[in-house]
Amino acid sequence: MHVLNQNRLRPVSFSNVVINDAFWSPRIKVNREQTIPHQYKQCKETGRIDAFKLDWKQGMDNEPHIFWDSDVAKWIEAASYSLATHPDPELDRLVDEVIELIASAQQEDGYLNIYFSVVKPGMRWTDLRDAHELYCAGHLIEAGVAHYEATRKRTLLEVVCKYADHIDSVFGREEGKLRGYCGHQEIELALIKLYHATGEERYLKLSQYFIDERGQKPHYFELEKKDSTGYFEDIMRYMDNLKEYNQSHKPVREQSKVVGHSVRAMYMYTAMAELAGETGDASLLEACERLWEHLHLKNMFITGGIGSTGKNEGFTFDYDLPNETSYAETCASIGLVFWNHRMLQLECESKYADAIERALFNGVISGVSLDGKKFFYANPLASVGDRHRKEWFGCACCPPNIARLLASLGGYIYSQSPDDIIVHQYIEGEAIINIHGQQVKIGQKGNYPWDGHLTFLLGLEHEDKFGLKLRIPGWCKNAELKVNHERVNILQNMDKGYVYLERLWKDGDIIELDLSMPIEKVYSHPNVRQNVHHTAIQRGPIVYCIESADNMEHLQRVMLPNDANLTAIYDESLLGGVVKILGDAEVLDSHQWENSLYRTEKPTSRPYQITAIPYYAWDNRESGQMRVWIPEKE
Amino acid sequence: MHVLNQNRLRPVSFSNVVINDAFWSPRIKVNREQTIPHQYKQCKETGRIDAFKLDWKQGMDNEPHIFWDSDVAKWIEAASYSLATHPDPELDRLVDEVIELIASAQQEDGYLNIYFSVVKPGMRWTDLRDAHELYCAGHLIEAGVAHYEATRKRTLLEVVCKYADHIDSVFGREEGKLRGYCGHQEIELALIKLYHATGEERYLKLSQYFIDERGQKPHYFELEKKDSTGYFEDIMRYMDNLKEYNQSHKPVREQSKVVGHSVRAMYMYTAMAELAGETGDASLLEACERLWEHLHLKNMFITGGIGSTGKNEGFTFDYDLPNETSYAETCASIGLVFWNHRMLQLECESKYADAIERALFNGVISGVSLDGKKFFYANPLASVGDRHRKEWFGCACCPPNIARLLASLGGYIYSQSPDDIIVHQYIEGEAIINIHGQQVKIGQKGNYPWDGHLTFLLGLEHEDKFGLKLRIPGWCKNAELKVNHERVNILQNMDKGYVYLERLWKDGDIIELDLSMPIEKVYSHPNVRQNVHHTAIQRGPIVYCIESADNMEHLQRVMLPNDANLTAIYDESLLGGVVKILGDAEVLDSHQWENSLYRTEKPTSRPYQITAIPYYAWDNRESGQMRVWIPEKE
Repeated sequence: MHVLNQNRLRPVSFSNVVINDAFWSPRIKVNREQTIPHQYKQCKETGRIDAFKLDWKQGMDNEPHIFWDSDVAKWIEAASYSLATHPDPELDRLVDEVIELIASAQQEDGYLNIYFSVVKPGMRWTDLRDAHELYCAGHLIEAGVAHYEATRKRTLLEVVCKYADHIDSVFGREEGKLRGYCGHQEIELALIKLYHATGEERYLKLSQYFIDERGQKPHYFELEKKDSTGYFEDIMRYMDNLKEYNQSHKPVREQSKVVGHSVRAMYMYTAMAELAGETGDASLLEACERLWEHLHLKNMFITGGIGSTGKNEGFTFDYDLPNETSYAETCASIGLVFWNHRMLQLECESKYADAIERALFNGVISGVSLDGKKFFYANPLASVGDRHRKEWFGCACCPPNIARLLASLGGYIYSQSPDDIIVHQYIEGEAIINIHGQQVKIGQKGNYPWDGHLTFLLGLEHEDKFGLKLRIPGWCKNAELKVNHERVNILQNMDKGYVYLERLWKDGDIIELDLSMPIEKVYSHPNVRQNVHHTAIQRGPIVYCIESADNMEHLQRVMLPNDANLTAIYDESLLGGVVKILGDAEVLDSHQWENSLYRTEKPTSRPYQITAIPYYAWDNRESGQMRVWIPEKE
Repeated sequence: MHVLNQNRLRPVSFSNVVINDAFWSPRIKVNREQTIPHQYKQCKETGRIDAFKLDWKQGMDNEPHIFWDSDVAKWIEAASYSLATHPDPELDRLVDEVIELIASAQQEDGYLNIYFSVVKPGMRWTDLRDAHELYCAGHLIEAGVAHYEATRKRTLLEVVCKYADHIDSVFGREEGKLRGYCGHQEIELALIKLYHATGEERYLKLSQYFIDERGQKPHYFELEKKDSTGYFEDIMRYMDNLKEYNQSHKPVREQSKVVGHSVRAMYMYTAMAELAGETGDASLLEACERLWEHLHLKNMFITGGIGSTGKNEGFTFDYDLPNETSYAETCASIGLVFWNHRMLQLECESKYADAIERALFNGVISGVSLDGKKFFYANPLASVGDRHRKEWFGCACCPPNIARLLASLGGYIYSQSPDDIIVHQYIEGEAIINIHGQQVKIGQKGNYPWDGHLTFLLGLEHEDKFGLKLRIPGWCKNAELKVNHERVNILQNMDKGYVYLERLWKDGDIIELDLSMPIEKVYSHPNVRQNVHHTAIQRGPIVYCIESADNMEHLQRVMLPNDANLTAIYDESLLGGVVKILGDAEVLDSHQWENSLYRTEKPTSRPYQITAIPYYAWDNRESGQMRVWIPEKE
């Protein structure tokens, strides 16, 4: 039996962190100034907000969709995080207005759901498998908590508490209650947040019930669908394994392989990890560890994208990582960040923070355009020119998901334990962390991810002995560390991927970390059939791609010689400022091929200079092809 | 303006050809003894045959499907061809019985269609785009002609003439007629066959009307679907271009690119080519030539498979030839054979016969298992182990299509003109061809496709001067020819890919053709992004694949070194007797990869002996992976 780490970390809240970072601050600004208003506009124009008026009637146009509540809730959550770090009376007012509308939609008994109030009244809780009812509730709860924590206003919090109380009265093992759970996990992690915000243990227990009950026999969805079909029956018909699709194929503690819909999986694992921490249930952590290995060692794209096919919006089989048809939903990479963030508090191992970094710098922010107004739902690793971000989606989960993550990014940088400060992510700015009753200031300076030189400055009112942990990223093979300009031996101070400095710190102490950041060529496990003989370019945490805009139309003709000379150059005018990589590549000739599709003569090649850009920045210029994995020529 | 060749060839009918070939005869036997009875059983058990009783009523199970008539018709066609070369009283009786049932389903006015008689009575000709009504008529007509030609019985022929007369009274440009055409081309080519069988010019004209009217404005399907939806509306919604899907986006003479559903395209081009020959309409031939180039130079798999995606069961964009998801429908490759066979009679160029050979030996016969009872609908070029032939399909077009092709294979071997005999395909046996009033016998001997040595023996009652053309296959780089043991210079006698021997022939003349048949490594055009850095093995007309059954589970790890030593060995115990290819390959190691999915160290490799088998024979043993294109190591 795994012994649960008693010294669980606590993340440092984003409200104690100021980000002042050349890479992230402009993104957060765009998120605040463009994305959040854009999403409000979309929610408003598509009727999602006014749907809370519950005045839709059968026969009217624009029937409310089962997901609509969650889109608005995630927008409120994003807006709230933004208000916490950047007060904005106008946005504050807008949020209040929307909350008022939501509150007005709450039924006497606490129930709150647009679709089942106006489209299918009287049908509450009859389609847990497909209809996303508890999922929407979960997002409303997350919004209520975020709004309360950002503004200290209890308006939405009280609404969602009342709703959660109602849900608690409906679901459970007690006589007369429904012994069900949601087809799309989400409420489980939301209820833990609500527990943290309110201290009400019933919410934690309800979350635990949902997690524990999942996959038990008799199987709830089997019973539910015995005499009825679900909202997505026509889609579900094409699923090979419906129970795996929503991870209810086994009780969660018996699960070892990531299966099914990837966002559902991530949200569930997030709740499992957090419950493990809250309850000390090592069996949940063990399941998480097995699932983590299976995901990260066999089923994750190099960008931190997950989900190999759009068919089930999820996992297929080990090492199946197709490039053009990768699903890699933005929401799934965000869920990966959530889950790893919870794991990191349980076990301070750099692999979790590495996974967060991989996703953040690649498969998450690829989900939004540089101007903040267009979004990828799926994030393919190659395109023949037909994949583009869109302003909105009928099922609009991804846009507000990335908005809420960017608005709360500060919360992913640091953790603390009673005696330690841990730096997981390298993002410039400052944090205030209470250690031994003292508000310790820690400042980060650098030009990450373009440069590996980082400086940390401590601000203390009085000297104190505590530990400082700095992550040595998995991609980094050589690092140097100095404390107050004196070299420290990193290797002798390593602890699960972090360099650990325990000493008497004083005000003005300077720590310098130098992470060597050469351009690397990366290879996939030989079982990834799509990438055999291919290589990807990575520098620091940034995964690169080649795009037609900088190169040629037919990118598949480009090959990277084994010994290709690659050069990194910062180009401030390119894509908001990026380190681009120039390389001596080769390109296949086609001039002898005019009259053949197949020949016994091998295609010849000629030298060709390629330009690679960070993957996250693709599809921000003219339309064209893109690929991350490039054929390698020996 | 292209000048249409005045000396159009005539194919030598399969009834004048005896096949006695080590490769094909066992297949034709299996087709006769297993496949045709198996398909009768399937048609019977699924209710397709009894549906002609028209006793299905609303509310009953097993609602007749819009394709059912065509499945039974194609079975009759296959059975008839078989009867022509292998009389079988029992089969003859069975065919008569089915024909009697079909005849009983014919309405007073000649109309004959199960679905629109019992499921949608009163709705005749209201859904030409989707409902396959004229398509089914076309297959009934082909069956009627085949049955008549095989047995000289007029039972079904008269039924279909009456039906064709009815169709002729309904469709056309005359006042009061419907100015429509079928969403799934087929009747066009069938009506030309009916014209040939009966001499009735109205059938030719009706075919021409359908071809000429297609894609004209106002667009018939636009008018038809103004106030109604089609049978496949839910599928059609996902089509990017509905008019391209059924090749009605432009008048046929203006078409230059193969688009849409590949079987529809092939059947249409077949009719266009034949009409060009019948009417001397060079503009139709020119369109065919443009389309031919576009298909064969940019959109054909190496197996002769066509159709790059299941989405539209058809074409996507140039050079998009995915391996695992290739559609390559068996019917489409058969349609490719039909079309090329018509082109070959118009222009005796080896490229057409080469295309037939490529499809026949690879993507067509891969469609049926060695035991004759299981069928591929799609013929992928790679499989991760999940693709298997099935006994039958809800939409069962492919199984009887391959049965009718195999039963009439003799018709694809020879053509003649008044003064020439042309040998297109190398299949052992004998043909009787009337030249200058004399029944010339031509015998073929050899062990094709395993061996390139071929012997032709002429049998004449008296000496005569005529031409003999033998195809030098496109895959062959060295050939030798002897007439009566005397070497003939091939190069000086080449005519569009055929060696042409015009002389005074006498009884007993022997022609020996030696086609050098080394193992070749084949490469794709550099624009085929799926095959960059990959090679396929081909020997003679046979495309090879590697299968897990002979090799390892994870085939993607196999690489073929540039200078790999490859050896061809005939193995009579393998897959009914094949030349297998052994090769010194390499295989990627994974033992350093236990804990990584991505690394900066390139995977190492070790020597590995591979066995390749003919592509057509894959998936006849235990389940496993398969691939045609193998990564090449320089």
